[in-house]
Amino acid sequence: MSTEIGALANAVLEGDRASLARAITLIESGHSEHRVYAGELIERLQPKSGNSFRLGVSGVPGVGKSTFLDAFGSLLIERGHKIAILAIDPSSGRTGGSILADKTRMERLSSNANAYIRPTPSRGELGGVARSTHDAIMVVEAAGFDIVIVETVGVGQSEILVADLVDLCLVLMLPGAGDDYQGIKKGILEVADIFAVTKADGALEAEAIEAKRTLDAVCRLLRPSPSGWKPPVHLVSALQGRGLDVLWDDCLRFCDHMKGSNAFHSRRAMQRVAAFNRSFEWQLQHLLSREVCLQDDIDATRNAVASGTITPSAACDHLIGRLRQVLHRGGSS
Amino acid sequence: MSTEIGALANAVLEGDRASLARAITLIESGHSEHRVYAGELIERLQPKSGNSFRLGVSGVPGVGKSTFLDAFGSLLIERGHKIAILAIDPSSGRTGGSILADKTRMERLSSNANAYIRPTPSRGELGGVARSTHDAIMVVEAAGFDIVIVETVGVGQSEILVADLVDLCLVLMLPGAGDDYQGIKKGILEVADIFAVTKADGALEAEAIEAKRTLDAVCRLLRPSPSGWKPPVHLVSALQGRGLDVLWDDCLRFCDHMKGSNAFHSRRAMQRVAAFNRSFEWQLQHLLSREVCLQDDIDATRNAVASGTITPSAACDHLIGRLRQVLHRGGSS
Repeated sequence: MSTEIGALANAVLEGDRASLARAITLIESGHSEHRVYAGELIERLQPKSGNSFRLGVSGVPGVGKSTFLDAFGSLLIERGHKIAILAIDPSSGRTGGSILADKTRMERLSSNANAYIRPTPSRGELGGVARSTHDAIMVVEAAGFDIVIVETVGVGQSEILVADLVDLCLVLMLPGAGDDYQGIKKGILEVADIFAVTKADGALEAEAIEAKRTLDAVCRLLRPSPSGWKPPVHLVSALQGRGLDVLWDDCLRFCDHMKGSNAFHSRRAMQRVAAFNRSFEWQLQHLLSREVCLQDDIDATRNAVASGTITPSAACDHLIGRLRQVLHRGGSS
Repeated sequence: MSTEIGALANAVLEGDRASLARAITLIESGHSEHRVYAGELIERLQPKSGNSFRLGVSGVPGVGKSTFLDAFGSLLIERGHKIAILAIDPSSGRTGGSILADKTRMERLSSNANAYIRPTPSRGELGGVARSTHDAIMVVEAAGFDIVIVETVGVGQSEILVADLVDLCLVLMLPGAGDDYQGIKKGILEVADIFAVTKADGALEAEAIEAKRTLDAVCRLLRPSPSGWKPPVHLVSALQGRGLDVLWDDCLRFCDHMKGSNAFHSRRAMQRVAAFNRSFEWQLQHLLSREVCLQDDIDATRNAVASGTITPSAACDHLIGRLRQVLHRGGSS
């Protein structure tokens, strides 16, 4: 198998698309044997990874992410880049059908040799998705893509997860600050490096301008990030291709800003540690579940804690006591 | 010892202050023998706990927390309440001297029989502080305090930690939106249920009004919490005792609002689970460190991950492999 992994790694490095797909499938697998091979693969690809600009793109359903990415991605390719899009959808309602739809929803990009689009199956917890996406980024980088876009639907925890994987978080916002105005999600303000109000054309243009004004006002009142950056707000029309070049220039300006203050590399170092911590916790839970047969007990205890029939401290002492027993007895029960 | 713990529990239930102090010291101890006794104590006190209104009060250094709490606490006592203040200071520069100062910095309260002030030593990680504070809340509740205030300096992670322990987060803000205006910390917006701009008197009154206007503008643009609450902004003067009664009425209004939508109880249930998860992770690390002798390896590996000499996945696989070995060999190496 080691030769097979070697061959797969070489094919990925040569940019073979079928091998790229196989490599990411291997990385996404939770099977313990696959985990060993995936580890070997990543080790081989690591020296060639890390050199892309990693962009997170998020926004609520209906914001026009696909149309935006199709136009924005095409612009980047025109400028000589090779772009990979890794799409994460943490919503549970997703079926195999809509994953297929992913490949066709960006028409111009999906037929372009300099673009690679990869949807991530929704099954599996967010923690697992984060782990495999972190590795998938390294794989597409090794395959020669110099811009990696991690796309996610903006629902709750997913933006925060993506912020932990990328160099820049671009948040797409809907036009409209009128009657149906829902307010700005607080969590968004935490992670956004750049905002772009979409659909700034036709009937929605006035509303888009209004949305930008509101966002500008909020951003002005907020404290800048530790590196001194204040998120700018852009107006874009993917349909008319307007605002996309200025937006990209601002992405590059952000990149320069971060590299200038050394924040770029320290952010990546923090992300690696976060990835390790997540991975370690996740596998530790897995180990406790499989080899110590403690998982049922953990779940039952957590429920008892929620309902208040046992205190968090007592619950914890109970489980740690059981684990200690197993350790001293040696191996699984 | 079981009889001793029983006697201690009874003394706490009777409201004996020296016993209360001993009980919290026991809870804060990291010593494994003490942990057992602390667990027993909490089990005994639990049936009498949980009935207070738990308030978080945070703000940057200089916002006037002590003066505010002295005046606000006195008002609550006048209204017939018994209040306990648990002060957390996560900054590392704290010495034994300033902990002593804690007891005297609220002059009116510290001599009042219906108030109990307890500083938490700063040593120890935030996770450990959260665990012991969660238990300390239960202890003071069992001792008959019906309002528990968890006070913290607003620096980074600490407000988020406190939000996980209380029913309402009150965030104190400095007056002034002038030249030295630093902007609103984004994290604050996430956790604040009610804002109060302090020092709204004398020379600072105009600046306090300006700060309230800014906060009001931001709050208006943000999405309400899932329960439908939008944080109100109050002006208070602890010196002149102005605004405190209206602020307290709003705290009660928030409490009614939360209870009405059942959010009050679901928030507490989530907090119990969070406390359990924190506690379990913390003790698991402890167990790995002590009994599996893996901690040095974990730390070294984490450093290697940060510097990029090993991938997060490979690092994780390495450690989990070592842990599995120990499990199958049985016990510590």
